[in-house]
Amino acid sequence: MYVKEEIVEEEKLSDIINKKKENIKYMKGMKIPENILAISNLKEVIDDADLLIFVLPHQYLDNVLDEIVQNNNLKKNARAISLIKGIKMVRSKPQLLSDIIEKKLDIECLALSGSNIAESFVYLYSCCLLSWIYYDLMYKNRLYLFQNYNRNFFFFVHLHLWCYYFICGALKNVIALGVGFIDGLTASYNTKSAIIRIGLEEMKKFAKMFFPNVLDETFLDSCGLADLITTCLGGRNFKCAKEFAKRKGRDSWELIEAELLNGQKLQGIDTTKEVYDVLEYHQLKTEFPLICTIYEISFQKKNPCSIIDVLSTKKLRNIKYK
Amino acid sequence: MYVKEEIVEEEKLSDIINKKKENIKYMKGMKIPENILAISNLKEVIDDADLLIFVLPHQYLDNVLDEIVQNNNLKKNARAISLIKGIKMVRSKPQLLSDIIEKKLDIECLALSGSNIAESFVYLYSCCLLSWIYYDLMYKNRLYLFQNYNRNFFFFVHLHLWCYYFICGALKNVIALGVGFIDGLTASYNTKSAIIRIGLEEMKKFAKMFFPNVLDETFLDSCGLADLITTCLGGRNFKCAKEFAKRKGRDSWELIEAELLNGQKLQGIDTTKEVYDVLEYHQLKTEFPLICTIYEISFQKKNPCSIIDVLSTKKLRNIKYK
Repeated sequence: MYVKEEIVEEEKLSDIINKKKENIKYMKGMKIPENILAISNLKEVIDDADLLIFVLPHQYLDNVLDEIVQNNNLKKNARAISLIKGIKMVRSKPQLLSDIIEKKLDIECLALSGSNIAESFVYLYSCCLLSWIYYDLMYKNRLYLFQNYNRNFFFFVHLHLWCYYFICGALKNVIALGVGFIDGLTASYNTKSAIIRIGLEEMKKFAKMFFPNVLDETFLDSCGLADLITTCLGGRNFKCAKEFAKRKGRDSWELIEAELLNGQKLQGIDTTKEVYDVLEYHQLKTEFPLICTIYEISFQKKNPCSIIDVLSTKKLRNIKYK
Repeated sequence: MYVKEEIVEEEKLSDIINKKKENIKYMKGMKIPENILAISNLKEVIDDADLLIFVLPHQYLDNVLDEIVQNNNLKKNARAISLIKGIKMVRSKPQLLSDIIEKKLDIECLALSGSNIAESFVYLYSCCLLSWIYYDLMYKNRLYLFQNYNRNFFFFVHLHLWCYYFICGALKNVIALGVGFIDGLTASYNTKSAIIRIGLEEMKKFAKMFFPNVLDETFLDSCGLADLITTCLGGRNFKCAKEFAKRKGRDSWELIEAELLNGQKLQGIDTTKEVYDVLEYHQLKTEFPLICTIYEISFQKKNPCSIIDVLSTKKLRNIKYK
């Protein structure tokens, strides 16, 4: 397991993990299996690896991929799985992170996405529904790759979604900010549900704009609706946005992130900016009142209360997809 | 306003409401407007009424309608709106409650359904999104009837759903029991979201079985998804099921209802029974693992933990509607 080195309590994080079998900074309380070794040298990790599993904030992906390419020690027949949620815009069009991995490393890359929050894994509170997303072309190989990984609390379902899941995985973090704002102002389930509902509509609309062949059912899958609800009720973006609204937008995101997340990264903020830029570029801001309001609250000092105004937008009911 | 008479703190409930302008038993803390009068005589209420608004547990609907018919003083041109959520099975087929009102009283009846919990109205915590459901035939008249009722915290949207909303309004209470069971056992958002997601699938499947023309989008509306989420997070059925699971199914629903609801009625329990009977009658139990498991936990002493097993049902992914 590659670990970006840092000093925690005057010791190297990789050393702490290997000694205590616990990442005391980012995953306190989670027992790491004995056979997993933390290594801070990326070249050493990649050497001899058959399967690369990417789980990192999407901001760091480019650097990591560049380093792997430079090291030039990746096996030709290695494969990758991406668990990264985020969105990458290339000339104002969203791109699949798994595609970026495939292209840069010239190996196959699958993606996993589902309804889960890291903390729940830590405590194994519950079942975690993960949906396995695959590309049709490589069905047999890939099915083989995963069929032994099912557990009774963690299992895969293979879906023909190949392009939607990552839009969903990215945009749900934006919507979670909206739900967080409302939760910082009021305790009502009604309003939170309404934001989630409108959020799903805008996610669907955004996805259909760039990937017109996406099936409607995919939005209702574990990596869609279930992940959206989970994230909107207890994820990092929700928690930080709640705090942002409570402090009436007076404190910066950086400050809130530092105070609440202990070094972890807030995905929704960057994604909101990227998605807003795309909407502006394509002159579509009026079609996405929720996402735009979340942007304005987050970056333009708009009153968090104004999220309520989105609920009276009549337009949403008559969405016409292109 | 018709009030079923009962004695509260040695006084008639209708007298208390008229004196204090508050229903101290069922809606404590809610100020009732000065111009609303509580009357325990149904005949007196109906006399001269232009618009009848039905808001009562669906178990009592038949009796109330029978009494109105017997009294024989309903205006010919009166209209009705139903806010009742529930399901009525006639020869193992679900029937619209608004249709029942229309037929028995021979007047037009609309229906309102949306994402709301009574307590939120009481405290006006928030925006309440109500979807107005109408029948296409009478569009103009009915639009006219409601267009002045919009408020900034309460507004109507007209939908062409005429048959779905009530299935959704009824079944969401069943799903909320499932989410309550899981919440009584664990604190994970993942699992709750998964149950909500599977619940929506089964609701959709059930509705499509009896009303094949229902549009997919309707499930994502305020009276669908938003109401489902709201109910599953904070409604009565959720709360009572949580308690039921905590007590490991040892206490009866009647006891829990009495202890937690202060005389209010739990809708989901009756609905679960009715829906289960329909599934049994049509030999469709295996197609609805969530609803059937909720039934078995509720009435057949099945362990509440078994709700988890539903999550590993692979079948759901490949739902084929008839």
